[in-house]
Amino acid sequence: MELKNDLVLRAARGEDIERYPVWLMRQAGRILPEYRAVRASLSGFKELVETPARAAEVTVQPVDLLGVDAAIIFSDILVVPEAMGLTYEMVEAKGPYFEKTIKSEEDLKYVEFDFDVEDRLGYVLEAIKLTNQELDGRVPLIGFAGAPWTIFCYMIEGQGSKTFSESRKMLYQNPTLAHELLTRITNVTIQYLKAQVKAGAHMLQVFDSWAGILGIEQYAEFGLKYLDKISNALNEVPLTIFSKGAVMSLPEVTKLNCNTIGLDWNMDVAQVRKLVGETRTLQGNLDPCALYGSHSEIEAATNKMLDSFTSKRHIVNLGHGVYPDIDPNKVKTFINTVKNYEFK
Amino acid sequence: MELKNDLVLRAARGEDIERYPVWLMRQAGRILPEYRAVRASLSGFKELVETPARAAEVTVQPVDLLGVDAAIIFSDILVVPEAMGLTYEMVEAKGPYFEKTIKSEEDLKYVEFDFDVEDRLGYVLEAIKLTNQELDGRVPLIGFAGAPWTIFCYMIEGQGSKTFSESRKMLYQNPTLAHELLTRITNVTIQYLKAQVKAGAHMLQVFDSWAGILGIEQYAEFGLKYLDKISNALNEVPLTIFSKGAVMSLPEVTKLNCNTIGLDWNMDVAQVRKLVGETRTLQGNLDPCALYGSHSEIEAATNKMLDSFTSKRHIVNLGHGVYPDIDPNKVKTFINTVKNYEFK
Repeated sequence: MELKNDLVLRAARGEDIERYPVWLMRQAGRILPEYRAVRASLSGFKELVETPARAAEVTVQPVDLLGVDAAIIFSDILVVPEAMGLTYEMVEAKGPYFEKTIKSEEDLKYVEFDFDVEDRLGYVLEAIKLTNQELDGRVPLIGFAGAPWTIFCYMIEGQGSKTFSESRKMLYQNPTLAHELLTRITNVTIQYLKAQVKAGAHMLQVFDSWAGILGIEQYAEFGLKYLDKISNALNEVPLTIFSKGAVMSLPEVTKLNCNTIGLDWNMDVAQVRKLVGETRTLQGNLDPCALYGSHSEIEAATNKMLDSFTSKRHIVNLGHGVYPDIDPNKVKTFINTVKNYEFK
Repeated sequence: MELKNDLVLRAARGEDIERYPVWLMRQAGRILPEYRAVRASLSGFKELVETPARAAEVTVQPVDLLGVDAAIIFSDILVVPEAMGLTYEMVEAKGPYFEKTIKSEEDLKYVEFDFDVEDRLGYVLEAIKLTNQELDGRVPLIGFAGAPWTIFCYMIEGQGSKTFSESRKMLYQNPTLAHELLTRITNVTIQYLKAQVKAGAHMLQVFDSWAGILGIEQYAEFGLKYLDKISNALNEVPLTIFSKGAVMSLPEVTKLNCNTIGLDWNMDVAQVRKLVGETRTLQGNLDPCALYGSHSEIEAATNKMLDSFTSKRHIVNLGHGVYPDIDPNKVKTFINTVKNYEFK
């Protein structure tokens, strides 16, 4: 199916674009009353993730309602550890919780690494197919997965953490087990991302949400090493790597075989461009809290960010997922400001 | 009283030292069985903070038991908002919780800014005096406070947060109120730090734990502006600023009128030295999780860090508070490795 709007793909590849493409992390979600209506008709977050028709429905909503230049499949990075055998619950106002965690070699008995990804994660692949049917080529569909390091952290801690000291402890006390687990997560993740492309994803993003908690040497050894494997295994569609918080590792992130690097809101675009150079597209990075401002303030903040761009190698986004209490009309102002921006 | 060991003060001022001084953030705390015994004899954390004789006792423990080159008064940054009228509870395994928070001008009625700091925070000042009596000049005593931005975050959120989006929202929706509150927090903090020096603190540290959640422009406006006021108001003793996570703002932090800059464990010392130059002492920054390694691994990691230092302007510490489940003998290995290190 031919895409009517492929701006985001061209920007990722460094090709010419007429204007900057724009989408938002967590655009399919609680900011939209239409999403909340779907969510309320189901038992919870997980039922929505696991029901392809409904997941597809909420994936398409922001394309219809907000006018973004890309859809991102409604899912969660934790479907991967769950497929491996670690079931999670999504606890309201608290986040994910895993009953079983990995603390030693023995705990690997809880985990399966050899299984048919297309079968066990078939519900995501089905949601991708249905979404593309509904989108009918209007915009590209982004598939995604968590980075091995971030998935590893959830498998060790069983939940979010301020310090992730259990995960980091293992890097010192049992690096062999850490590497074994990371290698296996990486293999499953590669299969999963390939399956998403086969099902119809036009672009991929890998979220390394906890990249910033490691120093540069440990991130090179336990994070980037596996992102390198992933990025070399996936060459069919553009790939975005979002190593959240890893400012000091950006020069190393740039060496990955990816098209686009995601930026946090607290990273300075001009400084990052100097570190990264012109061979990669940058994605981001308006402060999500800027959308709490008035319409004219949002317009000003967005234009200021766009003015700071020194090339066309940008995909506009927030520097973090959109916060649930943001007024969708404010999101529209952000999107429309990007669409109306003219290259100088 | 003359100090028998003033290494940490000389290192802060950039004077000559025979070896690097070393202490640990949270050294007076749960890692020590002797601390846990004192804590168990009281009703809770707050009683310990508010009972000068016991606070002094646990402040001195790591000097006796671990051999650190400085003591840091056992207290909490939240004594300041509490003195202003916002009472907090320390919830086990969760952290601080404030019942009242500031969301609008109207909520300022809960807060008092004009009061006698020496009276209301007299228990901290008394603990400082008692500690110095017990230390008898063995090592310097460090006083501390939270940075205005970090205290502001607690006053707005009422607890820790992943995103601090309520605090950041106010910067967009009501910057006037934000500046008013920050100005008032700053004034109280200056009085409080001056009172600590008067009571006997030989050195001061300001903790900006949430510096890293702001972009560089907002951190300049809502963070550094007030740290600048504080650092200009305090010239009697060496001052350390720890702007946690604010890698991109380090060149601006360096412009503050302080002696020492604290570093996280995930900051690369060599890269930071390039950004900061040689006019400031750097404090840190071994990964606290390195202390989960074996004694020989701790020795190797510590020596590696020391080898990366290119000058004497360093105070050795971890890059974060020591984690509560670390074996005190491992801490001793860290400390002794620093003490045995010979300048090349």
